[in-house]
Amino acid sequence: MKFSPLFWPIQLKGNSIYILDETLLPQKLAYIKASNYQQACRAIKEMKTRAVGQVLLVMYIFLLSYRQHKDLKKVAKAINATRPTLAFEVLTNMVLTWQKSGLDLEKCIFGFLEMLKNKRIKQAQVTASLLKDQDVILTHCNVSGLLPLVAEIAKSQGKEISFYATETRPYLQGSRLTAWELARKHIPVTIITDNMVAYLLSLGKVTKIIVGADHLALNGDIANKIGTYQIAVTAKYFKIPFYVLCPPPSKLKTGSEIKIEVRPDDELKIYQGLHLAPKNVKAYYPAFDVTPNKLITKHIYLEV
Amino acid sequence: MKFSPLFWPIQLKGNSIYILDETLLPQKLAYIKASNYQQACRAIKEMKTRAVGQVLLVMYIFLLSYRQHKDLKKVAKAINATRPTLAFEVLTNMVLTWQKSGLDLEKCIFGFLEMLKNKRIKQAQVTASLLKDQDVILTHCNVSGLLPLVAEIAKSQGKEISFYATETRPYLQGSRLTAWELARKHIPVTIITDNMVAYLLSLGKVTKIIVGADHLALNGDIANKIGTYQIAVTAKYFKIPFYVLCPPPSKLKTGSEIKIEVRPDDELKIYQGLHLAPKNVKAYYPAFDVTPNKLITKHIYLEV
Repeated sequence: MKFSPLFWPIQLKGNSIYILDETLLPQKLAYIKASNYQQACRAIKEMKTRAVGQVLLVMYIFLLSYRQHKDLKKVAKAINATRPTLAFEVLTNMVLTWQKSGLDLEKCIFGFLEMLKNKRIKQAQVTASLLKDQDVILTHCNVSGLLPLVAEIAKSQGKEISFYATETRPYLQGSRLTAWELARKHIPVTIITDNMVAYLLSLGKVTKIIVGADHLALNGDIANKIGTYQIAVTAKYFKIPFYVLCPPPSKLKTGSEIKIEVRPDDELKIYQGLHLAPKNVKAYYPAFDVTPNKLITKHIYLEV
Repeated sequence: MKFSPLFWPIQLKGNSIYILDETLLPQKLAYIKASNYQQACRAIKEMKTRAVGQVLLVMYIFLLSYRQHKDLKKVAKAINATRPTLAFEVLTNMVLTWQKSGLDLEKCIFGFLEMLKNKRIKQAQVTASLLKDQDVILTHCNVSGLLPLVAEIAKSQGKEISFYATETRPYLQGSRLTAWELARKHIPVTIITDNMVAYLLSLGKVTKIIVGADHLALNGDIANKIGTYQIAVTAKYFKIPFYVLCPPPSKLKTGSEIKIEVRPDDELKIYQGLHLAPKNVKAYYPAFDVTPNKLITKHIYLEV
C-alpha cells in the first residue's frame, strides 16, 4: 500500500527537513527545505504544512536542533508560539521531559514517529471497519492522507466507497488536497462548495460524515477546520452519523478552553493574488471552530 | 434616498436594454447592451443579471420585442427556457394575458414596473420596522439592493444596524455585490466564508438573519441561492430569527416542486480563469436549495 504524500508530508535528509508545501498543491508537488528551527517554524505559521504535518515537523525540528546543539527549551518556545489551536505544548513538553529524564532523544523521537505511523494505520483500519459497501462519505478539509488509506483498506474488504469533499474555503484544502489525493488513487470523489452540505444531505446522497480534528479536549469536544461545526449541526438535523478522526487528547477540559486562531483577513479576500472581495471591506477569518461532543456520533481515537 | 445600482439593475434607453453586468462587480460598474430578446436571454443564462434583475429584464424584453413587432409567444418561450428555478412563467403568462385581453401593453408594463418599485420600497420599510438599534444581521447572497435601503430607513429611525455577509461561493455575490453595495453607503459590513456561520452564531455575534428568495411556493417553502438551507438549519439550532424577503408566490404547492438548476461544474472549479481544484475531479453545482417553511421565522412578503 503506497501512502498519500499527505500521510507523511515531512522528511529528514541529512541536516535538512523537507516540508511538503501544501499551498502549491495540486498544481505542484514540491518540498520546502528548512535548515534550522526558525525556518521550520515559519513554514507552520505560513500554513505550508498543517494537521499531522505539524506533529511530524515538531519531532523533526527537535531532532535537527538536538544535532545542531540548540537550546531545546528555546526551540520548544518557538514551536509553541507558531499557531494557537493545535496543542503544540503537549508535544514539546513530551520531548523536553525525555531530555530531562536523560533518555536517548534520537531513539525516543524515532520511536514516537514509528508508533505514530502504526497508530494512524490502525486508525484507518478501525475507520474502514465502520464502513459498509456503497457508503458515500462527506468530508471537510483534509485528514492528512488517512482517507485514501481508509478507502483502500475498505476496498480490500470488498467495500466500494465514494466521497464528497467540501472545497473548504478560504484555503481550499478540500479541493486542493483531499480531492487530489483521492483522485490520484482513483477513488470516486466529487467537490462541493461549503454551502451545499444541507442540500446534499437533504437529497439523501450521503451516508456518513468523517472529519479530522486538530485538537481533542478531555470532554470529547474537538477543534477542527472552520466549517466543521456547521456540518455537525447540519448532520444532526438530517440524522447522518458524524465521525471524527481524533488526535490524542490535550489537557484541556472542554472545547471552550481551546484558543481559536484568527488569521489575517486578506487570506480570505485574496486568493493567489486574485481579489475576491472589495478592498475596503473587512473580513473575519477564524481558522477553526469547536464542535461539541454532543454532536459527534463517534470519536475514532488514535490509540495511545 | 439614492438606490443601490443593484436595486434597479436594468434600464431601457431608445431601442436597447442596458443590463448591469453583475459578474464584473465590484471591480467595474458596467452595463451590457442588448438589442433584441435573444441577447437579453443570453445575459440571464450567463448570470450577468439575477434575482430581481431577471424580473425587470423580462418586462423590458417584452417592451422591446413589442416595439420590434416580434411574436411575443416566441419571446415568452425563450424567456421561460433560460433558467429553471425562478418562476418565469408567472411573469410571461401575465404579459401574454395582457396582450390577449387587448390592453395597452406599454402602459401595463410600465405600470407593473412602477408598482414593483413601490412594493419593494414598502418591503424595505416593513423590514426596517422589524429591526432594533444595534441589530447585527447575517445575510447570504444578494437581495438586489434592498439591504442598503433597509439600513438607511432604519438609520432614519435612529437605529444603527450592521451586517455580516457570507461570501456565497461559487459566484461570490455576498462579497462582490452585498458587501460592495453596503460599504459604498458606509454601512458596516464584514465578510465571512460560507462555512463560518455556525461558529459566528455560537459566539452570539448575530441577532437576526435576513435572506432573499428566488421562488416562493404556496406553502411558504422558498428557493434561494445554494447555502440558504444550511443557514436556516443552523439558525434554528442557535435560535436566531430567520427572515425571508419574498417575491410574489408562484403556483407551485410546495418547495419540493421547485426545479433546482444544476450548473456546469467548471463554474465552481474555475474562478476568473484561476483553477481552484484539480482538473480531473468532478464537482456538483446546484445553484439553489429549498428552505422549508418550518425553518422560516417570518416571511416578509412583497405585497401585491
